[in-house]
Amino acid sequence: MKRNVYADNCATTALDPAAFEAMTPFLLGNYANASQPYALARAPKKALADARETIADAIGAAPDEIYFTSGGTESDNWAIKGVVGRQAGEGSRRRGVLASAIEHHAVLRAVESVRRLGAPVAYLAPDRRGVVRSEELARLISDEVALVSVMLVNNELGAIQPIAALAELARSRGALFHTDAVQGVGHVPIDVKALGVDLLSASAHKFNGPKGVGFLYVRRGVELAPFLDGGGQERGLRAGTENVAGVVGMATALQANVAALASTQAALAGVETRFLSTLNALGVVYALNSGEATRAPGVLSLAFPGFEGEALLHRLDLLGVSVSTGSACNSQETEISHVLKAIGAPDSLARGTIRISFGKQNTEEDALYVAECLAKITRTR
Amino acid sequence: MKRNVYADNCATTALDPAAFEAMTPFLLGNYANASQPYALARAPKKALADARETIADAIGAAPDEIYFTSGGTESDNWAIKGVVGRQAGEGSRRRGVLASAIEHHAVLRAVESVRRLGAPVAYLAPDRRGVVRSEELARLISDEVALVSVMLVNNELGAIQPIAALAELARSRGALFHTDAVQGVGHVPIDVKALGVDLLSASAHKFNGPKGVGFLYVRRGVELAPFLDGGGQERGLRAGTENVAGVVGMATALQANVAALASTQAALAGVETRFLSTLNALGVVYALNSGEATRAPGVLSLAFPGFEGEALLHRLDLLGVSVSTGSACNSQETEISHVLKAIGAPDSLARGTIRISFGKQNTEEDALYVAECLAKITRTR
Repeated sequence: MKRNVYADNCATTALDPAAFEAMTPFLLGNYANASQPYALARAPKKALADARETIADAIGAAPDEIYFTSGGTESDNWAIKGVVGRQAGEGSRRRGVLASAIEHHAVLRAVESVRRLGAPVAYLAPDRRGVVRSEELARLISDEVALVSVMLVNNELGAIQPIAALAELARSRGALFHTDAVQGVGHVPIDVKALGVDLLSASAHKFNGPKGVGFLYVRRGVELAPFLDGGGQERGLRAGTENVAGVVGMATALQANVAALASTQAALAGVETRFLSTLNALGVVYALNSGEATRAPGVLSLAFPGFEGEALLHRLDLLGVSVSTGSACNSQETEISHVLKAIGAPDSLARGTIRISFGKQNTEEDALYVAECLAKITRTR
Repeated sequence: MKRNVYADNCATTALDPAAFEAMTPFLLGNYANASQPYALARAPKKALADARETIADAIGAAPDEIYFTSGGTESDNWAIKGVVGRQAGEGSRRRGVLASAIEHHAVLRAVESVRRLGAPVAYLAPDRRGVVRSEELARLISDEVALVSVMLVNNELGAIQPIAALAELARSRGALFHTDAVQGVGHVPIDVKALGVDLLSASAHKFNGPKGVGFLYVRRGVELAPFLDGGGQERGLRAGTENVAGVVGMATALQANVAALASTQAALAGVETRFLSTLNALGVVYALNSGEATRAPGVLSLAFPGFEGEALLHRLDLLGVSVSTGSACNSQETEISHVLKAIGAPDSLARGTIRISFGKQNTEEDALYVAECLAKITRTR
């Protein structure tokens, strides 16, 4: 029987109904501009302060280290252009950037943009599992590197990167460390102090918050050029009327996800096991692209040799299952993903790859259904 | 009797309930990532296309000339940095910027930021009423100017600028023309072709849409460097997962405001007349800072000689009336507004200035009440 299964939670997630409830009063009721000094603005102002505290708590930061943005892309762009811009403004010769080759395009293309302005840039190669190792960073780091940027969880493979070790090495060489944690926040435990990062990007809609809002963690003492110039919002560093409803929704969703983290992870492990064991039981031929790398729970990059990922996606879609061939941000592009290229996946496997990303709403029955669909499709090619 | 009157509609506006209704299905129901190729993404993709068309229609543009952003500040930053960045990337010597001295800080500070990167910059002085005249532009324009930026409606004075004449002059000299229309869109009739502008910024929450979303009109053929690098959204020029609910709310609100424009303007003219005639009847001493300049209906910058704007604001607040001393984005700053300085307002008047901005929800009874409050306050200093 046909079943609708949304298994593309790395592309976006369902808004937490509690987040919607928390947003509504600031959409319909108290719409005052939070930066105004009158009584009507007190509630939105307090809501922003409370949200900042909730978000800071969720990642082990202080409230004044949290800057609200329009999403992960802005946070990534700001981190990279803000560090390089600041260094250039100071006339510093230290203005290079090292980024992993498997970053999201929001990082890679921001890095390309500072490269065009003259910043020296190099890319860290991952190993075959999609993990960037300290040895690779040690090989490339130099005194001209201002910023190292490595994501926490790769968005195609789900592979978790050894951020604490990489950040320690980068900082021992005088560079700042940024992590694009868009796929990690609300999904894996995060403590910015334990990670030792200077900058961390997040996007609300990846953790059951609303679209169009995110945040950048900036460690106290780190100096960053503003990215959006204008009014004095966000302590003068990120201008623009505060999106109070969005920020409140983001904080509510994050708090809920973090509170349920252990149980969600356990449930997702069950969903994943059911999915893979069903594939195995049905004799489906596949490879897990990330091999034995530690993964964020529920995120699977699977290669079906002899198939086209695009075709698998459409066949699954007809059966009610939504998955991805890679990053949603590049779904128009049909070329092979830069991530699969970087880990050296053979063309035949890369071409036959889909990303399945289960989320907290998915059940073992969903997993069973998706596996059965894949068995049916790959049997009747 | 105490009455609550929100008269700070230049700072932000109440969300149109119809916009909220239109947003809800994309917040709670169909949350799919609009850039994905599967069936679930069809509704958000279509909603984005429809919203783009609605917005384009509202300002006389084509849908492919509308780029969604996170708000007016981003639109302004993108227009200025995008033009200058593109010119610098081409190695062009034409990369100067002229902006009026009474622009919003989102423009002024973005201009300062390109100046620090080496772009030659100069500021157009307004006349005593807060209007930038063509003679002033003719005096300063040169072959090194890439972009002229003058706002459509000044956010403190309400003064409408002669954009068509300024844009024609700028373009005849080979420069592009940007207008920050954040206070104009949805409030005064706008036709980008009649205005002759290349770029136009807007912010949804200023016209009864949600906060955190806006748009930039980019005339077909104008080349702009991307501002947010990353995924392929917005035809590769503005990356980031689309804020579908926000965009849909923006389009719904704009369509409603434009449809009711004539009647809203007539109603606001009535509110304004009632307000000023009551002030006059009660013998209140005040000056209208914009003099006889043509103003956006409902926006009044009033000076009360011998008073402090800050104190008036707080006294009004206690009586239930929300107004501003100037731009909400700078409400923490107590210095005299750059706009009042630029028009040469005497210090005593500038210090005693408040901005009252009536909106479509305000009635003549509201106007009467605010005028009576001001009479009471200024009589019992």
